[in-house]
Amino acid sequence: MRHFADDLSYAVERAGNPVVVGLDPRWDWLPSSLATGDPADFSRRAQAFEQFCCEIIDVVATQVPAVKPQAAFFEECGPAGMVALGHVIAHARQAGLLVILDGKRNDIGSTAEAYARGILGRDGQSAWEADALTVSPYLGADSLEPFVNIAEERGAGLFVLVKTSNPGSHMLQDQQLERGAVYRYVAEFVEEHSERTRGARGYGIVGAVVGATYPEQLAELRTAMPQTWFLVPGFGSQGGTAQDVALAFDQRGLGAIINNSRAINFAHRRPEYRQRFGEARWQEAVAAATREMIAQLRAETPAGKIAAP
Amino acid sequence: MRHFADDLSYAVERAGNPVVVGLDPRWDWLPSSLATGDPADFSRRAQAFEQFCCEIIDVVATQVPAVKPQAAFFEECGPAGMVALGHVIAHARQAGLLVILDGKRNDIGSTAEAYARGILGRDGQSAWEADALTVSPYLGADSLEPFVNIAEERGAGLFVLVKTSNPGSHMLQDQQLERGAVYRYVAEFVEEHSERTRGARGYGIVGAVVGATYPEQLAELRTAMPQTWFLVPGFGSQGGTAQDVALAFDQRGLGAIINNSRAINFAHRRPEYRQRFGEARWQEAVAAATREMIAQLRAETPAGKIAAP
Repeated sequence: MRHFADDLSYAVERAGNPVVVGLDPRWDWLPSSLATGDPADFSRRAQAFEQFCCEIIDVVATQVPAVKPQAAFFEECGPAGMVALGHVIAHARQAGLLVILDGKRNDIGSTAEAYARGILGRDGQSAWEADALTVSPYLGADSLEPFVNIAEERGAGLFVLVKTSNPGSHMLQDQQLERGAVYRYVAEFVEEHSERTRGARGYGIVGAVVGATYPEQLAELRTAMPQTWFLVPGFGSQGGTAQDVALAFDQRGLGAIINNSRAINFAHRRPEYRQRFGEARWQEAVAAATREMIAQLRAETPAGKIAAP
Repeated sequence: MRHFADDLSYAVERAGNPVVVGLDPRWDWLPSSLATGDPADFSRRAQAFEQFCCEIIDVVATQVPAVKPQAAFFEECGPAGMVALGHVIAHARQAGLLVILDGKRNDIGSTAEAYARGILGRDGQSAWEADALTVSPYLGADSLEPFVNIAEERGAGLFVLVKTSNPGSHMLQDQQLERGAVYRYVAEFVEEHSERTRGARGYGIVGAVVGATYPEQLAELRTAMPQTWFLVPGFGSQGGTAQDVALAFDQRGLGAIINNSRAINFAHRRPEYRQRFGEARWQEAVAAATREMIAQLRAETPAGKIAAP
């Protein structure tokens, strides 16, 4: 029986780092060798996105533990985009990576179950065969439970939005209630279910999304949620640094995975890499940007202590 | 230039009622003539869902103003399901119905834009060509604004989750803050943007999802949000009655559309209709259940005052 939290610990230790490469394809930023044909043709666009993401996967599969495809960019291309997303997820799995689908799905009852059943679980358990899914908590506990139940049944994982990296996250998440901020109510739910489902390495299958751009809350939540894996967005392009995320880890360097999408996907557009590789060798820019992020995290955070399994 | 709120007023008046038929296909409840083949074959399942939904659309197109396909049930079938969803949306549009995609999508910045660009707008403006989309607000104002901007550009609409129909909606939505419950913060955002974008009929393009199962909050929010269209789920199977939703309407019978999925989609499973039509004439059960709901709303709510355009 798989256990997502244990699988994630193992994958992080095997890779020697906690980097998640987000897969966020955007037509305007693709290397010009891929952005050919009519961008208004959704099938062509989807095809280019698929090739771009699969090539990134080929580059990073030996470097990192997991990838996080962003459903929105594929959905933007209509049904053809969703077919491409299916291929990208399969390609990542076959390359030995864990796949966290970033869909921020949410609904109630049997509708939430439909999302969970369709997305979570390998080996024919689901149509999409992702290892984990991001979910949004506004609908409340009974909207999260169907996701938790099916993830648990299948040894898959979830990452519930708790405190997100965007400036507007204060609108609801930071509002003060009797027992603390709104995000603490969600954190409590998540930690409870992580505690209940924890595996051999001390972490449960219900993770939390906690932004790199709010280091104080990151530290506060690490203390409040000792058994919860954090998925930390906001590193790189959004301004989060290695030092900002240092407090997200436990003493073994586990407990947090740090996502980077744009600065890795489109490394060929960053001046330092553009100069070194040119646009034509964009895959080498991806590899170099990934190595750079790994080195930063290993040097400046407890991720430096990650030991081989 | 289209304007979703005006289009919706017109569609409601032309139909003479505010009923939205949710499209929630579930394999186990399909008429046995459609549930043929292997349910583990996602393509077969998607095909059956498409046929089921398109036949429902053919029945209700002359009865109601809009349909609301639930993305989750199509997504459950993987990429093949999303292809079917595309066909269902197109079929509904061609049948003259407004299409509200129930996806509860949410994300930040350019990712939120990708969802909005991909889903909202007819006539080649987007890949999915829906008229409106449901969105979830946990990420805050800057996560909603990209949806609002693109909807506005394209004359399309949104329905933001404000107070949902499920029992667990109290977990976050009902928590009391200084200026009222959490849901009132979302309501304020929505009403502001509805006010700003209001059309000829007094309503703006940013609507609110407000559940039928909390009549008190429905009445409270109607007063607080005079320029906002309400999409009201929870009628029928979830326990909401015509009397519960009566306070959602304005004096013209506009301002609210009432969704019913299960009790219409699977009317052939309801004892009264099963006896009358048998399973084989399930389409007639759909038509009769729709007529029944329309009659209830016209008799017991201000929807009885809806006048032809």
